[in-house]
Amino acid sequence: MPDILHRVGIAAPPERVFEAVATIEGLEHWWIVGTTGNPRTGGVIDFDFCKMKVAEAKPGALVHWKCTDGPDEWLGTEVLFQLEWKDEQTFVLFKHANWKAPVEFMHHCSTKWATFLLSLKDWLEREEGRPAPYDVKIHVGD
Amino acid sequence: MPDILHRVGIAAPPERVFEAVATIEGLEHWWIVGTTGNPRTGGVIDFDFCKMKVAEAKPGALVHWKCTDGPDEWLGTEVLFQLEWKDEQTFVLFKHANWKAPVEFMHHCSTKWATFLLSLKDWLEREEGRPAPYDVKIHVGD
Repeated sequence: MPDILHRVGIAAPPERVFEAVATIEGLEHWWIVGTTGNPRTGGVIDFDFCKMKVAEAKPGALVHWKCTDGPDEWLGTEVLFQLEWKDEQTFVLFKHANWKAPVEFMHHCSTKWATFLLSLKDWLEREEGRPAPYDVKIHVGD
Repeated sequence: MPDILHRVGIAAPPERVFEAVATIEGLEHWWIVGTTGNPRTGGVIDFDFCKMKVAEAKPGALVHWKCTDGPDEWLGTEVLFQLEWKDEQTFVLFKHANWKAPVEFMHHCSTKWATFLLSLKDWLEREEGRPAPYDVKIHVGD
């Protein structure tokens, strides 16, 4: 099954990157304003347009979600943020896995995830996150 | 084999988007400064770090390259820009296809392609391309 893959390197320790991906306050700074829920292992995070069950949240190393509610194409997909300290930065290896088919919406989401991962980088390095609804627009009417 | 997928919507007619992807001058404005070669069907474009043979360049509709020289992971891969006018914009459906494996470099290239496709969009909409070496940096030392 096709996956969306990305990688960014962030000039911040893995613990700070983890905090930005595994806490509600962190997520609101770079992905979606208004996020609620429980970001610990076993909890459910409510991003309004979708819900993610936290399969694993391993401090400084990994965040793994399973989509339990949201757009049809997202149901059953999994999102992983793998963190690795290397060359004076934390590399985030990102995967949005198990799409049923490489539909046009998957193309859109791939580009959109890139902008959000750069938002994560900019938030941690310069306090300049671009969470939705202040996100980078990638088409007319986005 | 895994593919990199992206989509952006550009407020410009397909003919202008095609010109930016299928001419040397166009490519220099959003992908790589110093590009040379022949961008017509059957020609070879030299991007310095890689060479692309033009499998097809169909005005206003499609550009299809095959990588004949460059990083090992890119050899034999194909790059496609499919253009479609819809909702008052040209959607670019992008695919970098036939990677041998989803290696870490593929994650990097996926994010990097997103920044270049947004560079293409910004070039055509606002004359603000970010071609290499003026490209958006996605890790320390990029």
